[in-house]
Amino acid sequence: MKVFDFSVPTRVFFGAGEVKQVKATAAQLGRKAMLLAAKDTMRQTGILQRVEGLLKEGGVQVVVSDDVAPNPRDVDIDGQAKAFLREKCDFAVGLGGGSSMDSAKAVAFLAAQRGGTILDYLAGGPRADLTGTKPAFPILCITTTAGTGSETTPWWVITNTQHHEKPGTGNDSTRPAVSIVDPELMLSLPKEVTRNTGIDVLFHAMESFIANVATPFTELFSREAMRLVVQHLGRALENGQDLEARSQMAWANTIAGIAIGEGKSSTVGIHALGHSIGGQTDAAHGLTMAAVGPAYMRKTWDADIARYAEVTRALGFAQPGQSVEELARRSPEALEKTLEKFGCRVRMSDLGVKASMIEAMADSAFKTMAGCLNCSLKSLSRPDVVELYKESL
Amino acid sequence: MKVFDFSVPTRVFFGAGEVKQVKATAAQLGRKAMLLAAKDTMRQTGILQRVEGLLKEGGVQVVVSDDVAPNPRDVDIDGQAKAFLREKCDFAVGLGGGSSMDSAKAVAFLAAQRGGTILDYLAGGPRADLTGTKPAFPILCITTTAGTGSETTPWWVITNTQHHEKPGTGNDSTRPAVSIVDPELMLSLPKEVTRNTGIDVLFHAMESFIANVATPFTELFSREAMRLVVQHLGRALENGQDLEARSQMAWANTIAGIAIGEGKSSTVGIHALGHSIGGQTDAAHGLTMAAVGPAYMRKTWDADIARYAEVTRALGFAQPGQSVEELARRSPEALEKTLEKFGCRVRMSDLGVKASMIEAMADSAFKTMAGCLNCSLKSLSRPDVVELYKESL
Repeated sequence: MKVFDFSVPTRVFFGAGEVKQVKATAAQLGRKAMLLAAKDTMRQTGILQRVEGLLKEGGVQVVVSDDVAPNPRDVDIDGQAKAFLREKCDFAVGLGGGSSMDSAKAVAFLAAQRGGTILDYLAGGPRADLTGTKPAFPILCITTTAGTGSETTPWWVITNTQHHEKPGTGNDSTRPAVSIVDPELMLSLPKEVTRNTGIDVLFHAMESFIANVATPFTELFSREAMRLVVQHLGRALENGQDLEARSQMAWANTIAGIAIGEGKSSTVGIHALGHSIGGQTDAAHGLTMAAVGPAYMRKTWDADIARYAEVTRALGFAQPGQSVEELARRSPEALEKTLEKFGCRVRMSDLGVKASMIEAMADSAFKTMAGCLNCSLKSLSRPDVVELYKESL
Repeated sequence: MKVFDFSVPTRVFFGAGEVKQVKATAAQLGRKAMLLAAKDTMRQTGILQRVEGLLKEGGVQVVVSDDVAPNPRDVDIDGQAKAFLREKCDFAVGLGGGSSMDSAKAVAFLAAQRGGTILDYLAGGPRADLTGTKPAFPILCITTTAGTGSETTPWWVITNTQHHEKPGTGNDSTRPAVSIVDPELMLSLPKEVTRNTGIDVLFHAMESFIANVATPFTELFSREAMRLVVQHLGRALENGQDLEARSQMAWANTIAGIAIGEGKSSTVGIHALGHSIGGQTDAAHGLTMAAVGPAYMRKTWDADIARYAEVTRALGFAQPGQSVEELARRSPEALEKTLEKFGCRVRMSDLGVKASMIEAMADSAFKTMAGCLNCSLKSLSRPDVVELYKESL
């Protein structure tokens, strides 16, 4: 067996109505919170006011910053971190999807450094390895999507507006202290968001399973999350009010987050290539992986046939009598059929990518997402990445 | 879906050779450690000297207390806690099986209270609910058995020598900060200990799966641990030097520990009844559950047929075409056959229990292990418990 280590330091409250735990837990994190939420939607649904009220009932003062962009930008974080310090906040609350939770992490981190800009700490910046940085202020995440898994990872992704990149980073201090996963908050999610975020969960689960850093601990979560998405995403798409389907997808998201966020675990080349599409086009994160996933699987399926065979099984496309090699060889097709089933079999051109962007995207994948690229079971050169992009155009 | 919460706050280092992590992590816990280990065995195998050396190389002073009894007694803990304070230790290291790790937890806890005896904090004592107690000193566990799961739970069991009871207790502060699970340390374990501790793992896995506090988080670990014990305990018994079998059993133990130690999770009535046998007879912990397990399953199998059917499947005794009810009904038999396979199908009388002890054992089960009893899917009255004991005599 492998040598590995693990822990799940975030305390996660899961279940319908559990948003109420905001009141019980917030005061353990600090006295004054900056509450970061997406522009408009959280206020329109009333969720923002509800969480603000629960924080106050819990004895916490609140500064609301409900101007988080769908892909949060470096300049936004710089401004929010300044406000955090000016208002003397001592913890950050991210309410919403990945963008809000990642903003809360980035703000809690940058504010703790007491100076500089977030670009200093992102790929290409002078302190990008985060060594010697101060630990972030405490973070509370409340996810309203079954999406990014950000509530159980240390990772945060901020758009570099100067270079059109979406670098991801994070360290132990940017794991949420507490996360709340309340499927009731997800009932009003539009179908398109349900799909794009649900597909992201599928890729977290599948990629962490075929990562060279997978461990017996993360595999348990990866396999179960793949199974749950296949079983429940369709129902959540058909009827957004189906609390059981929402709950199962929320749970799949939570544990896929553990699988990509725990220890040295990670996604692989699919996320690396997807992020660079997102940097160029602002396309929905989940769809960027859908565009490149099948080509990645065709390129890598023979790197570990037992693992890729298990992907075909978990996606529900194993036939009796097929050999492990046959099952592994069919994993790209199994992924394609799964994407088709959920209405998101797309090509990069559907997302606005042009052939002329490919070289810049390949550069960016190596510059900003080398960590994920290096977790692939088959090592990918720059020409390999260009080839995968061309095949997926 | 259920409402539940979870985290795994202990950082676990797993794998052959990982005992070396003692050196890297110890100094993060304190400056001076009390190292608690079983009498003789840890010194004879050289493991004690090795760990003591690693602690010192890590910059930590060490006070060795290698006098832990197989079932640690209240009076031992009182003495060790006094020595801990007298020597100005600031963390405890438990090296060995459950007795050493539980001693480390109890000493770290009692020393932090700066007074009193451990009996004050055990069932029947004036402060048994642990409310308002001070948090324990940090704890490092190094397990040398695939056994009690103590390295990933907050629980510790100390024998009450006045009442011949083995009450279990614990709180968030008695979870180890760091645990090390190194299967190489288990290679020299005698066959009998391998069996008795391996069966304990099976019961942790199975009981946590049929506990009314099971959650989707704990179930993942319970099911996998059952599967792993069935698959690997036989090999570990046949050849104790089989590192892969030792590793798989160690991993089963670690995750079964998470399943019983996480959040509000727990074992059920089988452990409650088993502990009271242990209080009266000093029998090996694992065998006490083997004696009462089948009767418990016969009494409770219809409380949740889907779950009990899954037990039959996980133990490997499902036949094609059997209904869920049929599978559930056969779970007691599946358990009996599993115990038989591993050579530990025993009755209470084999462990030295006499009919005259049953009333006292029933009293003790309710007094000291009510928490586990209450986690049973079917509520058990005192007459029920007496009946189960009689059936298992």
